[in-house]
Amino acid sequence: MRYEELTIEGRNAVLEAFRSGKTVDRLFVLDGCQDGPVRSIIREAKKNDTIITFVPKDRLDHMSETGRHQGVIAYAAAYEYATVESMLEDAGKKGEPPFLFLLDGIEDPHNLGAIIRTANLAGAHGVIIPKRRAAGLTATVARTSAGALNYTPVAKVTNLAAEIEELKKKGLWFVCADMGGESMYRLKLTGPIGLVIGNEGDGVSRLVREACDMTASIPMKGEIDSLNASVAAGVLAYEIVRQRLFDAT
Amino acid sequence: MRYEELTIEGRNAVLEAFRSGKTVDRLFVLDGCQDGPVRSIIREAKKNDTIITFVPKDRLDHMSETGRHQGVIAYAAAYEYATVESMLEDAGKKGEPPFLFLLDGIEDPHNLGAIIRTANLAGAHGVIIPKRRAAGLTATVARTSAGALNYTPVAKVTNLAAEIEELKKKGLWFVCADMGGESMYRLKLTGPIGLVIGNEGDGVSRLVREACDMTASIPMKGEIDSLNASVAAGVLAYEIVRQRLFDAT
Repeated sequence: MRYEELTIEGRNAVLEAFRSGKTVDRLFVLDGCQDGPVRSIIREAKKNDTIITFVPKDRLDHMSETGRHQGVIAYAAAYEYATVESMLEDAGKKGEPPFLFLLDGIEDPHNLGAIIRTANLAGAHGVIIPKRRAAGLTATVARTSAGALNYTPVAKVTNLAAEIEELKKKGLWFVCADMGGESMYRLKLTGPIGLVIGNEGDGVSRLVREACDMTASIPMKGEIDSLNASVAAGVLAYEIVRQRLFDAT
Repeated sequence: MRYEELTIEGRNAVLEAFRSGKTVDRLFVLDGCQDGPVRSIIREAKKNDTIITFVPKDRLDHMSETGRHQGVIAYAAAYEYATVESMLEDAGKKGEPPFLFLLDGIEDPHNLGAIIRTANLAGAHGVIIPKRRAAGLTATVARTSAGALNYTPVAKVTNLAAEIEELKKKGLWFVCADMGGESMYRLKLTGPIGLVIGNEGDGVSRLVREACDMTASIPMKGEIDSLNASVAAGVLAYEIVRQRLFDAT
């Protein structure tokens, strides 16, 4: 599935798009904006034969989808959704056990972007999202991912539970984040693994949870119920990273 | 709701807010407005380190809820800021080594809210933020904290580096999050500790970094630069939680 049009906004996100080799069709820059980061972006744009247009602030504001363009908006070639198969191939090529994120209905584009960012830095091979009831790859997601969307593939599947069953046949283990689970510090989270993060309000849905091999909880000392979804994803992902780093086997 | 942000409009009301000792996070003044009452308000604001922004009339009109701002609008936190002293007392009462979060200029209220939420669940005794160049306790922060603001105290200090020096005298160790640091898995993060998280774009400022005892980095495998600030705070906080849980001493 192909995403139709992508507006990239903000200096880091635009610069990262150029540097990752993404095809940027057009670049809009705030008229008179001359500082270092913007000059770097313009230099990259010229190197890549991107059409540069200088526009007044009200026009840029009007074009902006996020309201935070920081003086630059780029129209980039569409993001391609990846396939789960290609993520496994990538892991194979790198000689690493597959490490995938599965997001069971993350609705907030800021959370989705932050989780893709975390997936990139934790060394995951991709992020799988369901087709329905979930945020897609919007400009806000691209910006919040701080460029990670250029490197970490995202696949869309019709049925997350069915996808988990398929991947289990290929040797992956699935751990889902849930308050009722075993402390993550006591679980063995090495080997080929899929980390399942639930929806912001409802957590992991029943069918998906039942498809998982393990349920991991983050130890909680405070008075409130749960961490922010992207923070929980980060904490669990880094427990996996830690166990992989210090795994003696 | 207890922590709802208060918009105070009109000269008498704003001046009264300052004089009654209410914490005013931001003051907006009509550009070019120079008469006596407005000068008195600005003087009070400066005395209290309130951030002052001069704005054109149409922006002030747009911000106004009553339509009668008389050239001044103040944002006050209905929430009472706590003292650092009370956080240490709380740790003492619980028989726990103090665990504080220090945020060096977190600007995004969503990040601030998510970090307060994390602080609560990680069992921290409080969050310290600087008076300037930082998000205050707005309604958005209260909402994003998912109720944590009702339990986890937040203190505002004028100078974060000076506060760190004070707290070091009381036995706390300070670890700041920075890419150049030692891997967090290799540092000893038990005992009385302050976790310092930097600004979203610029990281931890030089003076604050120099005041810290240790610099911890989160191992990063991917292509991009850094985690989202609230995710990084969560990952580091939970490394502290893990070490405290499994500390044999």
